[in-house]
Amino acid sequence: MIKHAIVNGHLVAAHEASLPISDREMQYGFGVYESLRVIQGKIVYPHQHIERLFFSAAGIGLRHHYTHDDVLLWMRQLLEKDSLQEATLRIVMLGGMEERLFITALAPTIYPESFYTQGVKAISYHGERFLPRYKTCALLMNYLALREAGSHGAFESLLVNSYGEVIEGTRSNIFACEENRLYTAPSELVLEGVTRHKVIEAAQQLGYSVIYESPKLKDLHRGRYSELFISSTSMGAMPISSFDGRIFSSPFEITSHIHHLIRQWEEDRLH
Amino acid sequence: MIKHAIVNGHLVAAHEASLPISDREMQYGFGVYESLRVIQGKIVYPHQHIERLFFSAAGIGLRHHYTHDDVLLWMRQLLEKDSLQEATLRIVMLGGMEERLFITALAPTIYPESFYTQGVKAISYHGERFLPRYKTCALLMNYLALREAGSHGAFESLLVNSYGEVIEGTRSNIFACEENRLYTAPSELVLEGVTRHKVIEAAQQLGYSVIYESPKLKDLHRGRYSELFISSTSMGAMPISSFDGRIFSSPFEITSHIHHLIRQWEEDRLH
Repeated sequence: MIKHAIVNGHLVAAHEASLPISDREMQYGFGVYESLRVIQGKIVYPHQHIERLFFSAAGIGLRHHYTHDDVLLWMRQLLEKDSLQEATLRIVMLGGMEERLFITALAPTIYPESFYTQGVKAISYHGERFLPRYKTCALLMNYLALREAGSHGAFESLLVNSYGEVIEGTRSNIFACEENRLYTAPSELVLEGVTRHKVIEAAQQLGYSVIYESPKLKDLHRGRYSELFISSTSMGAMPISSFDGRIFSSPFEITSHIHHLIRQWEEDRLH
Repeated sequence: MIKHAIVNGHLVAAHEASLPISDREMQYGFGVYESLRVIQGKIVYPHQHIERLFFSAAGIGLRHHYTHDDVLLWMRQLLEKDSLQEATLRIVMLGGMEERLFITALAPTIYPESFYTQGVKAISYHGERFLPRYKTCALLMNYLALREAGSHGAFESLLVNSYGEVIEGTRSNIFACEENRLYTAPSELVLEGVTRHKVIEAAQQLGYSVIYESPKLKDLHRGRYSELFISSTSMGAMPISSFDGRIFSSPFEITSHIHHLIRQWEEDRLH
């Protein structure tokens, strides 16, 4: 039962994790965040998420005095206090004269099994994130792109840059498969997803080669790729069944192998 | 004395104008805002600001049920309740399942007279706002650009787009003067500032012509223009004395004439 939150290391009632509407850094979105998955009371890849939080903060010049161990301890305190077994933890760090760090818990995001067996629909959206390597609070474009997906009955928008390259989703990374090769954006153009790393490790272990070239929109439209999938902490590797109307048919073999392997690794770490 | 705020039409204690850190629309910056100047207890150009608030909301597809008269009434209620004579009012409207509108008051922004007689320093910053016609909560780039200015001892960063055009400031519009002509970005590329409109009216009344072409960065560096100034609600028309190290010398005649005329109009409306 979610009853608490952490504000700058202090356990507070969940409703006290709030900010005045006049808070300058909140208004400007001068902050970074992470979402973490909790299964069986344990945080999945906490170190990688904390490192990325700090990487994002450094990327926008957000100075702070929090340590890796602080953040890890606070997350564990929150899980213990509310006896949380399955949840999503969200860390938000805001900069400014005085930095602030919030940890809140939400219900876990669990997708229906059919999303994995039948795939989900996606559309293209022309737009690029500002400072795409960092997980910042500048998210309006993501919001609008995701809403556009929703209005087409789609689950995700895939962002297309000014070169016609499909670089990432609004809340996911992207992989396109051609024979035994996986194409994905170069790391310097996108958010280095924690799950993206695991997908790449899994692909290599399963004998696929990973090529750091963003799939082109026109190649996706022309049917060059046999599978297309998105990855994130909450999704794992999720197959796309339709992209701008072009159909990808199940079984999504490569996606499915990778998804099961990365979920298996998460399970293995619990014991 | 600022003691209150308005939340969805209700007068509340100022500290109650807050949001949970987990608020989805706040996290995504799915909102629009306005800053208004209050002098002698009266709001300067309230109708224009409310119209632009609604224009921005429509621009990002933020549906709401607020009316022009609602917002005007609420602002006046807040001024009256706290007997505010000189202040800045800030309206923030957030979308989502249930829209929210906040009105908060802050101390007025008043710049030293020397900023107008001696000018202020500015630097260039390569970056473009997302959806630049709308005053949205997607402000991280503005924050970083303004901080960059501060680290150079400058007052403002002027944003340069990928074509090398200087289109607007982080919180201002831009005008460059060549003989009796004022150059400024085409309206479809920038935020249509309420004060920008007044600058254009004033320029025309004073016999200058206004040309809707963004000044080029290289022309500014080469010294094509005799004056360069920025405009905003709080600044009026403020002269730049140094841009990327190139000096503009006082007296800033055109800027000064325009500034005094637009401030005169504001005074005239009070009586």
